[in-house]
Amino acid sequence: MLHDQVIGVLGGGQLGRMLLQAASPMAIPVVVLDPDVNAPAKQASQPQVLPAFAQSSSPLRHLDGAFTEAEKIRQLAQQVDVLTVEIEHVNVAALRQVAQECATQGGRSGKGVKVFPSPDVIGIIQDKYAQKAHLAQRGVPVAPFRPITADPNAPDPNAPVSSDDPLASLAPSVLAAGAEFGYPLMLKSRHLAYDGRGNYVLRSAEAEAVRAALDALIPAASLSAPGAKPLGDRLYAEKFAPFVKEVAVMVVRGASGETRAYPAVETIHRDSVCHIVYAPLRPPVVPKNGIGREQRGLNAVVGKSVDTRAQEDAQRAIDALGEGAVGVFGSLLLNEIAPRPHNSGHYTIEACNVSQYTNHLYAILSLPLPPITLIPAATAMLNLLGASSDANADFLQPNGVVAKAIEIGAAVHLYGKAGCRKGRKMGHITVMGSSDHAVRSQIRQLAALLPGAYAEPDRDADLDETSPAKPFSSQHPLVSIVMGSDSDLPVMKPAAQILTRFGVPFELSIVSAHRTAMRMEEFAHGAEQRGVRVVIAGAGGAAHLPGMVASATTLPVVGVPVKASVLDGVDSLYSIVQMPRGIPCATVGINNSTNAALLAIRILSTYQPQLQKALYEYAHGLEDEVLAKVGTLEQIGWDAYEYKK
Amino acid sequence: MLHDQVIGVLGGGQLGRMLLQAASPMAIPVVVLDPDVNAPAKQASQPQVLPAFAQSSSPLRHLDGAFTEAEKIRQLAQQVDVLTVEIEHVNVAALRQVAQECATQGGRSGKGVKVFPSPDVIGIIQDKYAQKAHLAQRGVPVAPFRPITADPNAPDPNAPVSSDDPLASLAPSVLAAGAEFGYPLMLKSRHLAYDGRGNYVLRSAEAEAVRAALDALIPAASLSAPGAKPLGDRLYAEKFAPFVKEVAVMVVRGASGETRAYPAVETIHRDSVCHIVYAPLRPPVVPKNGIGREQRGLNAVVGKSVDTRAQEDAQRAIDALGEGAVGVFGSLLLNEIAPRPHNSGHYTIEACNVSQYTNHLYAILSLPLPPITLIPAATAMLNLLGASSDANADFLQPNGVVAKAIEIGAAVHLYGKAGCRKGRKMGHITVMGSSDHAVRSQIRQLAALLPGAYAEPDRDADLDETSPAKPFSSQHPLVSIVMGSDSDLPVMKPAAQILTRFGVPFELSIVSAHRTAMRMEEFAHGAEQRGVRVVIAGAGGAAHLPGMVASATTLPVVGVPVKASVLDGVDSLYSIVQMPRGIPCATVGINNSTNAALLAIRILSTYQPQLQKALYEYAHGLEDEVLAKVGTLEQIGWDAYEYKK
Repeated sequence: MLHDQVIGVLGGGQLGRMLLQAASPMAIPVVVLDPDVNAPAKQASQPQVLPAFAQSSSPLRHLDGAFTEAEKIRQLAQQVDVLTVEIEHVNVAALRQVAQECATQGGRSGKGVKVFPSPDVIGIIQDKYAQKAHLAQRGVPVAPFRPITADPNAPDPNAPVSSDDPLASLAPSVLAAGAEFGYPLMLKSRHLAYDGRGNYVLRSAEAEAVRAALDALIPAASLSAPGAKPLGDRLYAEKFAPFVKEVAVMVVRGASGETRAYPAVETIHRDSVCHIVYAPLRPPVVPKNGIGREQRGLNAVVGKSVDTRAQEDAQRAIDALGEGAVGVFGSLLLNEIAPRPHNSGHYTIEACNVSQYTNHLYAILSLPLPPITLIPAATAMLNLLGASSDANADFLQPNGVVAKAIEIGAAVHLYGKAGCRKGRKMGHITVMGSSDHAVRSQIRQLAALLPGAYAEPDRDADLDETSPAKPFSSQHPLVSIVMGSDSDLPVMKPAAQILTRFGVPFELSIVSAHRTAMRMEEFAHGAEQRGVRVVIAGAGGAAHLPGMVASATTLPVVGVPVKASVLDGVDSLYSIVQMPRGIPCATVGINNSTNAALLAIRILSTYQPQLQKALYEYAHGLEDEVLAKVGTLEQIGWDAYEYKK
Repeated sequence: MLHDQVIGVLGGGQLGRMLLQAASPMAIPVVVLDPDVNAPAKQASQPQVLPAFAQSSSPLRHLDGAFTEAEKIRQLAQQVDVLTVEIEHVNVAALRQVAQECATQGGRSGKGVKVFPSPDVIGIIQDKYAQKAHLAQRGVPVAPFRPITADPNAPDPNAPVSSDDPLASLAPSVLAAGAEFGYPLMLKSRHLAYDGRGNYVLRSAEAEAVRAALDALIPAASLSAPGAKPLGDRLYAEKFAPFVKEVAVMVVRGASGETRAYPAVETIHRDSVCHIVYAPLRPPVVPKNGIGREQRGLNAVVGKSVDTRAQEDAQRAIDALGEGAVGVFGSLLLNEIAPRPHNSGHYTIEACNVSQYTNHLYAILSLPLPPITLIPAATAMLNLLGASSDANADFLQPNGVVAKAIEIGAAVHLYGKAGCRKGRKMGHITVMGSSDHAVRSQIRQLAALLPGAYAEPDRDADLDETSPAKPFSSQHPLVSIVMGSDSDLPVMKPAAQILTRFGVPFELSIVSAHRTAMRMEEFAHGAEQRGVRVVIAGAGGAAHLPGMVASATTLPVVGVPVKASVLDGVDSLYSIVQMPRGIPCATVGINNSTNAALLAIRILSTYQPQLQKALYEYAHGLEDEVLAKVGTLEQIGWDAYEYKK
């Protein structure tokens, strides 16, 4: 259970800090090994006074020392029951040695120390080529890749680098990869690569370009460094995959092998470092091509969402690492795995019932893994990255990003790091809201206060909110208004006006059940994935649109019967309201799109209290309007009163 | 801003611990004064290494010592900028003295130390009689009360206690209070009263009863204790107010006087100690008398909910404490104020965007107070109260309440207290969910695993879930099915069956717009307050019920036109669908209550992803059903195929 094991962590950075902050509410004892006596993680607890262990022979203390030294790891192991890492760049050989020494004896209890994840798993992940090969062998889909090997004996006569240059030995292998995968070609370092470091996009087979790539990835100084890896073990090549959004999934794997996945999230990078994370994931939308036109490749499969597919892929990949894969694993799809909590999962601290840190603790303590739920409708995380050596002061100035975050009620995390420098992760901010639109608006406000280039809006920024007359009041609508024909627009316009008045983000377009059947299917299947919560569909005559949309989504669909040229709209009404059992369509009065919008708002208000308040005010407004007429009627008298349409 | 002030806390218990846990993510430096070197709060940080203050002349350290000693408070003041309390039973005189000494000089910066809340405010709150008098003078509504004074010179000849007994001097005042307020009479200690301690219900004016009350409230040993308060300053009397539920509101008041209130919550006490807290507050319902029959006294006022009224009352009370009232204040309505975060607000740690602890930090650091939002639809907190000296071990056993909480994904808090004893607060558990019903089911499961009497279900437990045929499938329904007449029941039954199949808690009753107009109004106004999210209303002929309900609530109302004896249901359909602009009613097909229930589930699924999944499965089921018939038709042939109704 909770209080019979002490945890030791190799590394004391912000991930360790948040792990200790997750352990603190449960009074789980954790000690940290880090060279810095002031390491962020060490600030988060005083392990020596935890009562369950107060009577222990040696009081618990954080250790000062390198987490790469076997002797230090050994000292840490002596006072704990479980070892884990908060950074993958540990000394695997030293960790493996200590793990073997302490497998069944030693440690705090004398009965041994478990190491989660296992040194073997960390080792596989440290070498990105070995990681890819391991996953590919086990049937996990990965982008095509091959090693860059050294071939000093048979240099290609056309090799673009002179043969007295040691890097020349790699050129033939690079060119072979280029010949196989084409250009641009992705060249990557196998080791110590993270946050985009160690990646290089080679654009052509030209000698200069290859030279530049090899120089960038293998600095001259590293050739003669002590313990340097052989040249042929340094790099690998990957088929270049352009992507619109990077998708990340955190997976937790328990000691008994079960896995749980967090929602797939969208990560936006700046200079290859995580800048913003949005959850849940929405497939990209290109509004110019019309509603619901999603990018191929990330398109939803009916019955299985992008989110579900990403979660399944990530779980399969972690499972393929084998039984030592215990704890939380960050998985950037199309990219790589981190054997620890990950920047893209910081939002889980506030926005999930169980955070990635708490789940990491549960996994390494061999506790059951709980079901994971995203609590708010939407959430986002903004990294506070150093722009300079004094950026920390920038963040904290009276009109800075932290002050704004406090003002709007966002959650502020500062890592307690003593020094700031460009690109250093100093903290993060998490916002939660009742819609993608609300969350993105807040993130925009906050990001604009960041120092330097981080303040520039990302290309995915919402459309201008001051232009509600456009088909999209936001790229992230909660309500989608569709109509069978542009002739329905005069009838449907009041719906757009009501939604604008209530500040509900919406989109509006033409979707005909009969004339654009494919577009309708695509729209209906994709709507929920894009964050739409209610569809309003207007149609006249043989009015099939609302019911057909309702049959292709689980969203509530509000149908507006539009009065056509004959039958006074009764044909439209019956066509919409008399749906077969199993597929409901919420029908409102003929031509009454005002009520359709108000119904959509009532539906949204079931989880957005501020809309409920606005509806109350609207109702009181209606009452006041009628009461004013009562007054006028009494004042003027019935014979003088004129009804104005 | 955040990192220019150090906070000192008097007291190191669980409230201090959670305050430091709230400070930790923001790296706000906090030092604790408590006699216990292992105090729960001290475990939560190592203040001496906080980098912003590492270069300070004297490193920050938690202090060991009594928070009632002026000299210790002075030592704490020397290393901080702001002093606050986590317990109200501090030495106000000593705190006032230090506050005066350090008002403009001394402290960490040499520029003085602020004390929030002010010693004066703490002083008023410590004396519950002074607190009542203070609030009453400022027009805050409080229960009628009067002091119990000592009157040794004029003992009532009928006094029930002999005059050589010192307590006898109080009897005349007790009897006078009884004569004024009647019996039962509430007698309360003015000082050191909390968690029900110091309260006594006097049932009659009989001599023995008064004797027992005085003995219980004023132990003999306290009469001659050093520094004992005069007898006439010990007690006060209050008019007895029976209550069904205790309502609590946390209020935060900023240094510039603005206040923000958390949602009003329902607290359930056991032995006068907080046992369970539910949020948001629901007015009590007595199902035997039918839907929506609320207890008078807590009934909703149209346009202003119980929640809003409770929040306003609490904010007014805290405002009345004056400008020194800075920080978080727990307010048990009908009862008293705590000048600090409160047990009834622990749920805010996970369930609000900003917790009561974070808000206390913002207030005492003179930061702006953010808007407060409850993130999940419902939440509840269960206290882990010691049942015996080894109850802590009970909580932590493999099948205990903590293991269950982890399994279901609840948040676990353990306070790191070394010793357990009966009634001691050892920790708490918070659950969050998409409905009151879901949250209460989880709390029931957890509470059943508590040691001793805490395992007994509370009287407000949901009805048996295995009896969906009753009008209530749960006392906390998300959907309310109403119909104009029992003759509509055969048509409305499929709605109840669908909701049962999807596991959606509902209620079902008869509400006639024409024959029970008052009941309809009461039902429609109260539905949202009781947690109902969708109303399904069925009616036939001049079918006014759905529209009339829609006009008296902001909830989405689904109307089912019931086919009456003439016109084939077209009369019902038109009566329901053709609502005037401003009041929408979601109409489904004639007699199609199946679709009404499915529409209600679609509406709920907009914030309950698991319902969306169930709807997908249902849709696939419908598809499979039709495809099976396709197969049968192909196999048998059209001439042999028989349609079965």
